[in-house]
Amino acid sequence: MLRGHQTWVFDSKPIILSSAAVGGPFEAKGNLAEDFDILHEDLWLGQDSFEKAEKKLLEEACEKAIEKAGKKKEDIQFFISGDLMNQIISSSFTARTLGAPYLGIFGACSSSMEGLALGSLLIDSKAAKYVVAGACSHNAAAEKQFRYPTEYGSQKPPTAQWTVTGAGAVLLSRKGEGPRVTAATIGRIVDMGISDPFNMGEAMAPAAVDTIETHFRDLNIDPSYYDVIATGDLGAVGHRIAADLLIKHRMKIPSKIFTDCGIMIYKKEQPVMAGGSGCGCSATVTYGHFLNRMRKGELKRILIVATGALMSPMSYQQKESIPCIAHAVSIEM
Amino acid sequence: MLRGHQTWVFDSKPIILSSAAVGGPFEAKGNLAEDFDILHEDLWLGQDSFEKAEKKLLEEACEKAIEKAGKKKEDIQFFISGDLMNQIISSSFTARTLGAPYLGIFGACSSSMEGLALGSLLIDSKAAKYVVAGACSHNAAAEKQFRYPTEYGSQKPPTAQWTVTGAGAVLLSRKGEGPRVTAATIGRIVDMGISDPFNMGEAMAPAAVDTIETHFRDLNIDPSYYDVIATGDLGAVGHRIAADLLIKHRMKIPSKIFTDCGIMIYKKEQPVMAGGSGCGCSATVTYGHFLNRMRKGELKRILIVATGALMSPMSYQQKESIPCIAHAVSIEM
Repeated sequence: MLRGHQTWVFDSKPIILSSAAVGGPFEAKGNLAEDFDILHEDLWLGQDSFEKAEKKLLEEACEKAIEKAGKKKEDIQFFISGDLMNQIISSSFTARTLGAPYLGIFGACSSSMEGLALGSLLIDSKAAKYVVAGACSHNAAAEKQFRYPTEYGSQKPPTAQWTVTGAGAVLLSRKGEGPRVTAATIGRIVDMGISDPFNMGEAMAPAAVDTIETHFRDLNIDPSYYDVIATGDLGAVGHRIAADLLIKHRMKIPSKIFTDCGIMIYKKEQPVMAGGSGCGCSATVTYGHFLNRMRKGELKRILIVATGALMSPMSYQQKESIPCIAHAVSIEM
Repeated sequence: MLRGHQTWVFDSKPIILSSAAVGGPFEAKGNLAEDFDILHEDLWLGQDSFEKAEKKLLEEACEKAIEKAGKKKEDIQFFISGDLMNQIISSSFTARTLGAPYLGIFGACSSSMEGLALGSLLIDSKAAKYVVAGACSHNAAAEKQFRYPTEYGSQKPPTAQWTVTGAGAVLLSRKGEGPRVTAATIGRIVDMGISDPFNMGEAMAPAAVDTIETHFRDLNIDPSYYDVIATGDLGAVGHRIAADLLIKHRMKIPSKIFTDCGIMIYKKEQPVMAGGSGCGCSATVTYGHFLNRMRKGELKRILIVATGALMSPMSYQQKESIPCIAHAVSIEM
């Protein structure tokens, strides 16, 4: 099971029976609109707060994934989820809706792959037959909590990123058909002393590189093994830094297979500065776009490296730098 | 591995090689002072913020547990931890200090047993040789974040609880000597519509009862199997409600074995209203007091049922009720 220092190899190759992605109006205008199962015209999703709208995104993603697999809520043995809200209320309130035993996680934007890794471990170790793993974020809820309410119209530097309004979920199983989770590399904290919350990409890039290098060393394979290696939400600035660092470390990943969910999700003309971010970024792009391409036969092996900036507004105010992490999960058809 | 609906049985019985508990000045005056490895006279722990003091509690608990097992930081393959702070900064910054691959979790005050359950799963499934699981809370940091800064001197009703200033950690292993983790029941959300954040005990009691009943049903054993069944932090009000509910559900747990960490930790004359609470409550009482008694041969089998109120100040302001959860872990000598 444990290979090398930090990588789990799942011998039973847990199956992603189904997956779902739900997005907001801004995502509907993006590059990957066709890969969403549900797209909302209303940023509020008919709710009276952005926080409740975020919860609804996650509820819908989970319910859609369960429906697509032909299962019922009662079939789900464990629900694993995380988000950016204080005390991960979006995940916990969704757990109430689903009624399944619940493991709350927090890895900031890396929560998507932390959940997929843990969910796969539960399936592989026979601790569960069916697990739903999910993650979500909401642009306006995140702005309100981490920066300023969007109504203030505060300006941002070009290194800043746009939190994705979206949720993604997968239903994992021991049996059935679908893409399979083959390995997961759990990251450690990398903190290069950066404390600028408007430059998360730069802060997180070294963590992504650390986990990518560890993944290949632990498994003794090289990047050509994969059709796509995608970081979660480094954005244009962070992704370029990660690519440069990998070259410095003499790890060659061809640029045509090395991409980033935060760069892919929006169109160039959308005003998202360096690109998308948030728990919902890697969750929707992976569980929507990438898994759809795998099911169509366009991709056979992908590695998703979701990165997380594990700071809080409080730690920033107290002049702490940003501890970053990245978890990588390998999915094969 | 999976027994019944929600219970994991660990065939290899992961070993708690060592454990440590660290507390503050108020805990030093409590009932269980002798069971702490480190007690601080200074609520600030020499730091310039309560949040940094909370992190230091957890760092010390982890380092002490590693030292007591005769291990080094480099031996630890995974660190699993959660706390009450927004974005669990105490755990994430401790992960930076430890340098180990890190899985952040959030289950409010149930985080202690969520971490112990997941850590045991990692050991049992051979996903790790050594895991450190921890949890922490700090009275003044929690008051500041969830209620009012302590300097305001705001009054509280008798149902309110006192957040423990403390951290607990265990080092789990496949081999060695010590108390062993035999099973874990992962809870589901129980929400009875209570929304008063000054009466967490009442809100959490039904979740504790749900998990206790599930544990015994899944394992087909009865309460007499254990020498102690301790809830995490229901306090005097919540624990009485849980006891009443169990009687109503025709589950007899003798009162001499049914206790609560939040009732045990402080003396009667300490002004803690209904008792202790916080992630550090069940973590210090279990990883200090109970494990010490097991090592002395006074207890053979214990069941710790840590409860969590998965709300946030925001969800409360938005008139949501409190979704509660409880995770139970069985430890045997």
